[in-house]
Formats: sequence, structure tokens, C-alpha cells
Amino acid sequence: MKISRRGQRMPSSPIRRLFHAARAAEERGVKVYKLNIGQPDVPTPEAAIEALHHVDRKVLEYTQSEGLDSLRDRLAEYYRGFGLDVTRDDVIVTSGGSEAVLFAFMTALDPHDELIVPEPAYANYLAFAEMCGARIVPVQTSIENGFRLPPVEEFEKLITPSTRGILICNPNNPTGYTYTRAELEAIADIAARHGLWLFSDEVYREFCYTDEPFVSVMSLPQIRDNAVLIDSVSKRYNECGIRIGCLVCRDRSLRDAVMKFAQARLSPPLLGQIVAEASIAHTSAEYMHHVYDTYLERRNYLIERLNNIPGVYAPMPGGAFYAMASLPVKDADRFCRWCLDEFSHNGTTVFMAPASGFYSEPGKGLNQVRIAYVHDTEYLGGAMDALEAALEAYRRENKE
Amino acid sequence: MKISRRGQRMPSSPIRRLFHAARAAEERGVKVYKLNIGQPDVPTPEAAIEALHHVDRKVLEYTQSEGLDSLRDRLAEYYRGFGLDVTRDDVIVTSGGSEAVLFAFMTALDPHDELIVPEPAYANYLAFAEMCGARIVPVQTSIENGFRLPPVEEFEKLITPSTRGILICNPNNPTGYTYTRAELEAIADIAARHGLWLFSDEVYREFCYTDEPFVSVMSLPQIRDNAVLIDSVSKRYNECGIRIGCLVCRDRSLRDAVMKFAQARLSPPLLGQIVAEASIAHTSAEYMHHVYDTYLERRNYLIERLNNIPGVYAPMPGGAFYAMASLPVKDADRFCRWCLDEFSHNGTTVFMAPASGFYSEPGKGLNQVRIAYVHDTEYLGGAMDALEAALEAYRRENKE
Repeated sequence: MKISRRGQRMPSSPIRRLFHAARAAEERGVKVYKLNIGQPDVPTPEAAIEALHHVDRKVLEYTQSEGLDSLRDRLAEYYRGFGLDVTRDDVIVTSGGSEAVLFAFMTALDPHDELIVPEPAYANYLAFAEMCGARIVPVQTSIENGFRLPPVEEFEKLITPSTRGILICNPNNPTGYTYTRAELEAIADIAARHGLWLFSDEVYREFCYTDEPFVSVMSLPQIRDNAVLIDSVSKRYNECGIRIGCLVCRDRSLRDAVMKFAQARLSPPLLGQIVAEASIAHTSAEYMHHVYDTYLERRNYLIERLNNIPGVYAPMPGGAFYAMASLPVKDADRFCRWCLDEFSHNGTTVFMAPASGFYSEPGKGLNQVRIAYVHDTEYLGGAMDALEAALEAYRRENKE
Repeated sequence: MKISRRGQRMPSSPIRRLFHAARAAEERGVKVYKLNIGQPDVPTPEAAIEALHHVDRKVLEYTQSEGLDSLRDRLAEYYRGFGLDVTRDDVIVTSGGSEAVLFAFMTALDPHDELIVPEPAYANYLAFAEMCGARIVPVQTSIENGFRLPPVEEFEKLITPSTRGILICNPNNPTGYTYTRAELEAIADIAARHGLWLFSDEVYREFCYTDEPFVSVMSLPQIRDNAVLIDSVSKRYNECGIRIGCLVCRDRSLRDAVMKFAQARLSPPLLGQIVAEASIAHTSAEYMHHVYDTYLERRNYLIERLNNIPGVYAPMPGGAFYAMASLPVKDADRFCRWCLDEFSHNGTTVFMAPASGFYSEPGKGLNQVRIAYVHDTEYLGGAMDALEAALEAYRRENKE
């Protein structure tokens, strides 16, 4: 029996593939500081858990394939609160932001089609492109200048007859980079001029620490119909496990095609939809401010600690809750695995995501890691102590 | 901006595409008997709803991509209860049986690869094959002989160098046909001889009304490693909305590839997993017997009513909760839409799934519909009255 070439080529997740090594370390009694995954420790809003406790249904039924009308109304209302002209009809509820990405790619990309993506990029974009047989064409950014976008001409140079769209993640996972209005306008102009889709993954939209206000792709008039927003309630309300996201687009032809993929999988999760609706309806501004302040404090603490470790460099992220850092190692994949397999410091070690998986071209970002600052500063402090000790031991033991 | 050829070719769901016509009829005040969709009216087990009311978590987190260990243990135990040799490691939890089909296809089928499927077949197999760029090669069965499988030589004739597997649904959706041990052994022998995967969708395994016991593909020794079980708790416990299914396979290489697709979408729904675990653990034999008896009664009632309508023929289904019927119309797609758009009988009408969508070849099954018997006999009675009146009016008004 054969495994498909697609199945062989699918990248394994850089965020999750060391999971079993981490578990083995824990089974040896080592405390593993988990900086690999964007799973916040912040409590889910109480109103969301309450909604769950009060589910008053005899049958846990399918919903419409596009999601509950009441949730779609809430989501549209949420976007209108940011001044975005979005109605219920524009919103299709998905099983997490992940499924919104999959549906967007399936709808826009045939085998051999191309999608332009600034890199480093969220690793699973590569995976979803592989599922479509499509090609990610990277626009390189570099850690030295804080992952700022290159001039838009660099995007335009990459456009070929096979280009179908541009994908950005804003604020960015894994870099934390947050796009300026000027950058977004420039990208939007290109998309409009060349008739391309502009996909914007804005799942970290509430966590933007720059002085400029966050700019959504849905607010740019020149791509009113080209813009496809990918979103999720996971990070906003700390409910990653409920698997509720959405795809928002004003273009009817795209939505009609997305709906065929949505119907094939029948329904997004009912219970997640109930929780998401309660979260949007009842989460207080205090909760949101508190979460924001929490991440801000953690970010500032983490970046200072990282840059104080000899040989480590981490630019200040403008948003989201990730930082990229370059380490004084040649191969961060090997180093990250070594931290789990062989190292411990006072009974602790650190679990980071090697950054090579966030680049489509082999050989890029080899000395970089992604760190999620989703735990408190005490936890981050312990993790940084372990990282510092690990780097020293790694050098001393001549592991490279 | 372009829609992919895949997005254009994706079939729309024959089960769901008339949804908006049905809603419009309801808005006009017509009572619509919904026989189109396998959404049972049977209550979800109380223990499942209870589990939801007692979720005691501060953060609704991601789970492992393969699902909670405790749920995988429960599922393996459930299969062992049927004498199947299945361990936790063999089980990967998915977002409904739908995602298990998608992952199986993605892992086994490259563009232009072929999968042999007895038809009529669950319509979304075609949709998931389209997502992979793969081709469904149908083995035709006919309503005249109750959708019995043709001799296995018919399968063997269809095997080409591009064939990667055979897919069966047992008990079958949409026909209700339940495979005999001899048929399964014959198909398994072919799969073994040609090194093909044998995918078996057994989501209706608990609803088998024939005298022979149900035979799972996981029990056949000649395809110990070729067998891939696709399953779901949706129909078994009347919790379609929780979106929990699984893929079960003893072949490590297949599971490793499936895991890469599973990691790309991060996690199956946490809340659904909690509910599914409670359902497996705490659902009584009485509940299962009651549901079984309920469907049996409905089946017998429905088939008798159908066959008493002039020009209608419906063979007795051996399992699941669907019946296929041929109607005295030329084009059931048009008739089903007409029932929703233009017809009413004492303020009621009927919503059925036209069967053409369950065949991959255009022109097949044009006069057939699929009917789900997931409502009580009073409801089914009203629906049959409406169907009978509709057929008469359709003929009288010379709609064809």
C-alpha cells in the first residue's frame, strides 16, 4: 500500500513534532518549560464557561455549514465595532482559523499555482499549500531589521501568470511584526492592480503593541472584494480548544466556492459556536485590557532576558505573543531536540520551536527559534535560566 | 481574482444545497418535513450533556493533535468490545468522520490516483476526492436488486496502475445495504492481492438489522495492515454537532502521514472530545437498544408507506437509517426543488435529497431520492402524505 507523494512531502509541525521528546523528558522527571506553542495560560472568560454549563439542548445537532446565524451576527457586529463594513452574509464559520486557511487555499489555488507569502511564516501555511499542490513563493525578511517588509517592488517581482494571491499574517506569527498602514496600502495596491486575492490572517488583531492603530485588510477600499480575512476566537478569548474561526469575504463567488468545501464537512463544532458566541457577547473590556497588559509585560520581560544572554538576539515584536530569537548555534533543530533529550538544569529544560519550519526554503533561519510568551514572567524566567544554561553547556560540550 | 478549477468543480452537497429553498418555504409558512439529512431527533445521552455541564477547566485548551489519550483509550476499548484487535496507538481522533475521510484520502491519493467505490455512495466522498485531485471509479449497483454488490470480478476489472484503494460504507449511506461476510472477504482478498488500502466507513455500525452479525473490516486477517476504519460518534450517540470521529489503522506509515495532516489543523475539538468520552463510558445498553428499536420501527413503517405510493419503489435497507426510493418522475432534482418552491399539501411539503449527487457519473439515479428516517412515524406519516400528494400534483400539472 502506498502513501501519497503529498503525504510524504507534508511538513511535520515544527511546533508539535518534538512533542514526544518533551513528554519523554517529563517522564524522566524533568520540568519542561513549554515555549513552543501558542497555548496561553490565561483563563477563558467566565461567561464562556458559563454558557457551556447552561447548554439547554436535548440533541447536540449539526448546525448550518456556514455556522449559526446568531454567531455570524455577533462576529459581523464585532468587526463593525472596528469600523469594518461586514455583514452576516460575508462570514463563514470554520473549525478554527486553520480550516479557514485550508478553505481559502482550496478555493483559490490549483496544483502549481503560486501564493506570495512574507517569510518566516506560520508553518502550517506550507502544510495547507501542500494539501492543494500549490507553491508558496516567499518574500524574505530578516531578523536583523526586525522582519520589516522589503520594498513592495520585491513582491511585484515575484508575480507570475501562476500567482493567485498574497498572504499576510498581521500581527505576524512567528515574528510579531505588525504591518504599517503604508505597507498594507502598498500590498493592497499590488493585489488590486494584478487581480490577486489578499489573504490576511488577523487572529492576533487584539494584541498590537505599536503606537499606530491596527489596520485590517477589510478596511482598504482598493481591495474591497479581493480581501479575504482569516480569523479565530482562539487567541482572543483563550479558547484554542473550541476550534472556532471564520473566513470573511465580500466577494460572492469566493464565498459560494468556500461553501462547497464547508458543506462537504457538514458543520463546524456546535459547542464551540455556543462558547464563541458567549465570548463575543459577554467578554468585558476589562478582561481584554488585562490580557493585553499581561502580554505586554511578558513581552518586555522576555525580550530583555533574551538579549541579555550572550550570543542571543531577539528584535522587539510589535504584536501577537511570539518572539523570534537567533541563538549562538548552527542548527537550532538539533539544539532544541538536545535540550529535551539530553539536557537539564536544576531539573528543568526548555521546549522551543526551531524556526527552520517557518521558512519554505531549506537552509533559512537555521539558528533561529520561535518562543511563545504565553506564560507568566516567573515561568518565562525559569525558562530563560534553563536556556542560558543550555546554551553554555551546548558550547562547552562542543555539541556542534 | 480567480476561483480554482477545484473550487469550480467541487460538487455542492445534494443533502444541503436545497437548504435555502426549504428555509424560504418555511418563511412562507409551509411546514417542511425534512427527510434530506441524517440528523436524528433522538436525544443525546444524558451523561453526555451532563459531562458538558460539569466541565471543570479554567482554560479551554488545544488537545494533542491525535486527540485526548483518555478518549483514544475509550475508543480502543469500544472496538475491543466487538472483538477487534485495536490499541490506543491505532486511533487518531478527527473532527467528525468527515475529517477522517479527508485525511485518509489526502494520505493515500495523489492527483489522478483512483479509488474504487460502490455506487450510489455518500456524496461527500466525491467532494473529498475532488479536494485531492483524485478520481472515484464507481462500481455500479442497482436499486432493482437492492443495491447488492456485483461479483468481485467487477471490482478487479477496474484496477489499474493508478488504483490506490477501495472504499466501502457499511452499513451503507445512502442505500442501507449491509455487506455479507462473504462479500467483505472477497473485497479484502482483492485489496490484499493488489496491495490496496481498504477504507471502510462504519459510522452506522450499531444500526444493522440483518440476521447476520455486522462484520468490521478491522476483523479480517488478510488485510490486517491494509484496513483503514473511518468512524464517528455522531450517529451512534446522536451528537452530530460535536464533530468527533476517528481514523483507525494498524499501519504505522499511514498513521504517521495522517498525523502530519492532523498537526496542520492543530487539534480536534476539545469539548466534543469530552462529550464523546462520556458518551462511550456511560451510555447504557438500554439506550442503544431503544435507539435501535426506534429505527427499526421507522424503517418498516417508511418502506411500507413508500411502496404503497403508486410508481414508487424502495428496497428494504439492511442497516443505517436511510432508504433509497425510485419515483415516477424523470428528474428527481427538479421534483425535489419543485416540492420546496411551488408545492404544498395542507400547508406541508417534503424535503428529500435527490440521488443524482450520490453517483459520480452524470445521468445515474435521476429518478431516485434518498430519505433519512430520523424522525418518528407520525412525522414520517405526514411526510409520506405530502410526498404522495406532491407526486400526484406533479403528474397532474404535467411538470415533466
